Amino acid sequence: MVFSSALIENAVNEFAKLPGIGKKTALRLVLHLLKQDVNQVQQFSEVMARMRQHIKFCKLCHNVSDEDICSICGSVTRHKNIVCVVESIRDVMAIENTQQFNGVYHVLGGIISPIDGIGPDQLNIHSLVERVQQQAIEEIIMALSPTIEGDTTIYYLSKKLKDYPVKITTIARGIAFGGELEYADEMTLARSISNRLPLESYVQR
Amino acid sequence: MVFSSALIENAVNEFAKLPGIGKKTALRLVLHLLKQDVNQVQQFSEVMARMRQHIKFCKLCHNVSDEDICSICGSVTRHKNIVCVVESIRDVMAIENTQQFNGVYHVLGGIISPIDGIGPDQLNIHSLVERVQQQAIEEIIMALSPTIEGDTTIYYLSKKLKDYPVKITTIARGIAFGGELEYADEMTLARSISNRLPLESYVQR
Ligand SMILES: [Zn+2]
Ligand SMILES: [Zn+2]
Repeated sequence: MVFSSALIENAVNEFAKLPGIGKKTALRLVLHLLKQDVNQVQQFSEVMARMRQHIKFCKLCHNVSDEDICSICGSVTRHKNIVCVVESIRDVMAIENTQQFNGVYHVLGGIISPIDGIGPDQLNIHSLVERVQQQAIEEIIMALSPTIEGDTTIYYLSKKLKDYPVKITTIARGIAFGGELEYADEMTLARSISNRLPLESYVQR
Repeated sequence: MVFSSALIENAVNEFAKLPGIGKKTALRLVLHLLKQDVNQVQQFSEVMARMRQHIKFCKLCHNVSDEDICSICGSVTRHKNIVCVVESIRDVMAIENTQQFNGVYHVLGGIISPIDGIGPDQLNIHSLVERVQQQAIEEIIMALSPTIEGDTTIYYLSKKLKDYPVKITTIARGIAFGGELEYADEMTLARSISNRLPLESYVQR
């Protein structure tokens, strides 16, 4: 692509670094920004920089947060004794969107995937065990994608937690095996959470 | 969409203002930025703000430029006596990509479209007539999309320029009628420019 402006070229290159954005799309976005008011583009720019600079990860659940403790963990109306274990921040948002869950979360930051070189040590598993040890947690809901890696992670976590008096459940298989949790529609996901099962019935399936 | 962080929510909203980017895509982009180094996101942010703040429009051809005169108009190797009239900056880039044209441009900033309320006065037409009056321009290539609006604009411009000793040509109809010039593949666009026709043959068609 030939540019007659380095300012434009640099902006296109920055957009094109984003996932799913090719050079043509990047150019369309840049030309759109070009048509906007200077202040609006300034705001776009500042919001992005500020977000990355000031974002925190909740010290309890590892969710993204504006403070040391996220708004979910900090809420007085959420049940702290039910912890929903998810792979990513995106899954927290997907479940929050269903408005069906009133407990708290634990974000693993991934799932066990030997093929990708991700073992238990790279995930927020130690802090989950600590939460179970230190707090009065009654139930842990495994809300992981129904894939081989999800199953492996559930199995690993259930072994780690087997000596504690905590009920382990999994979200109902409303989602087809191999499906990605975050792409499930809200209804399926909501049902899947309310119909959750004790781990035993899941493993014996 | 429920967010547990205002920093994230604001960033998602900013991305979602861009054309073709919905909330889900915006979230994916924000979560991608979140995984990047602070300095990288800072750079992304600065490049966008700097682009909008410092971009200029060439005083001769209205193309985007880092200086008062764009790098095409300022180049000593380009033929200043052949002016290619285009609708937008994007069309300049599309034609530059073909590497088939060694003249200069004139960016109209749109085409005459009564239905969209765009008349000749909103376009850079006066400055085109001035260029023809003041410079030794031999040929004007009308490189407008082959649509009703494109034809209307060509007709209007040819009337405005009829008293000046300048040859008016149009790019060859390699592109299907009704097609958008900027989406044409490079080969079609390149052929279309080298096979350009005198205006007479176009109008009598
Ligand atoms: Zn939290
Ligand atoms: Zn120029």
